[in-house]
Amino acid sequence: MTSVQARLLLQQCLSAKLMVQPATEDEEAKYVTINRGLIVYICFLQGASMDTVDKMAKAALNTRLSSSEDGKLVSVLDLPGDVLIIPQATLGGNLKGKVMQYHRNIHKEEGANLYQAFVDLCKQTVQGHEKAKNCYVQAGTYGNRQVFSTETNGPFTHLIEF
Amino acid sequence: MTSVQARLLLQQCLSAKLMVQPATEDEEAKYVTINRGLIVYICFLQGASMDTVDKMAKAALNTRLSSSEDGKLVSVLDLPGDVLIIPQATLGGNLKGKVMQYHRNIHKEEGANLYQAFVDLCKQTVQGHEKAKNCYVQAGTYGNRQVFSTETNGPFTHLIEF
Repeated sequence: MTSVQARLLLQQCLSAKLMVQPATEDEEAKYVTINRGLIVYICFLQGASMDTVDKMAKAALNTRLSSSEDGKLVSVLDLPGDVLIIPQATLGGNLKGKVMQYHRNIHKEEGANLYQAFVDLCKQTVQGHEKAKNCYVQAGTYGNRQVFSTETNGPFTHLIEF
Repeated sequence: MTSVQARLLLQQCLSAKLMVQPATEDEEAKYVTINRGLIVYICFLQGASMDTVDKMAKAALNTRLSSSEDGKLVSVLDLPGDVLIIPQATLGGNLKGKVMQYHRNIHKEEGANLYQAFVDLCKQTVQGHEKAKNCYVQAGTYGNRQVFSTETNGPFTHLIEF
C-alpha cells in the first residue's frame, strides 16, 4: 500500500451523467453525459507525477475491459466507446477505526494539475485514434461533489494501482 | 498486494437497481432496488475466510461514509439507509499487459459460500440495529452478470482491503 501513487477504478456503462457545475441563483446545474463506454474514477496520492499520468491514461484506454458485440473483450478505444472521467479523492482513503483518513492524498493544487493533464491526454489519445475519434471524453470538475448516475449492463469493476 | 484476501468497494447512493435473475423464455428478468444508502461491491481472493467476512461486514456497516441531513458523516446503520451488495469478482484482477488476470481470485464455490455468509451477516446486523431495522439489505446473485443502475448525490467511492 505505501508505494501506491494513484488509483484508477474502471466501470463499463451503457450511459452515465455527471454534474460539472452546481446550480447557482442565476443558473441551473450543468451536466455532461456519455453513452456506451467507460467510467474512469481517478485518485492521485503523494508521489504521483506526469509519468504516472501517462501510464494511467494508457491503462484506462488500452486495457481490454469492454465487451464488444461479438462477446470479445476490447479496449474502450477499439469498442469504440465514450469515456467519463470522475475525480474521486475518497479513493485514496485508509480505514482507521470507524473513519476513513486521507493522509496520503496528494495536495489539492498538484492533484488538480495532474487531473487536467490526465483529461487532456485522454482527449488527445481518443481524438487521434482511427476508430474512436468521434467518441466523447467528458470529465468532472476537480474538487466538486460528483453528482452522478449511470446505467450498466454489468459494471465489471476493475481497480488498477500505480 | 500479495496479502490482500478481499476487497470492498463502497459507494453512497440515492437509489440503485440490480438484476438478480436474467429473463428466460417464460419469465421476465427479476430486479431488486434500494433507496438512499450504500452500494457494497465485494470480491474474495485466496486466503479469505469467515473471519475476513466478519471484518468486512463490520467495516461496510459501521464505517462513517454516509452524509446525514445535518452534514455529519455517519455509518449506513446510523443514517439509517439501505444496503445493496454486489458480487464483483473482477475487482480481484491484476493488470498484465493489456488484459486483466484473475489468478488470485478465490475458487468459485468457496467464494459463493463466503458471499452468502457476508449477505446473511449484513442482514442480521441491520435487523438487529435499533435505527436500521426497517432498512433493506438486498443482494445480487453470485456468478451472474450484475446488470445495474444507480443515482447518486456524489458516490464518495471508498476502497477497503482485508
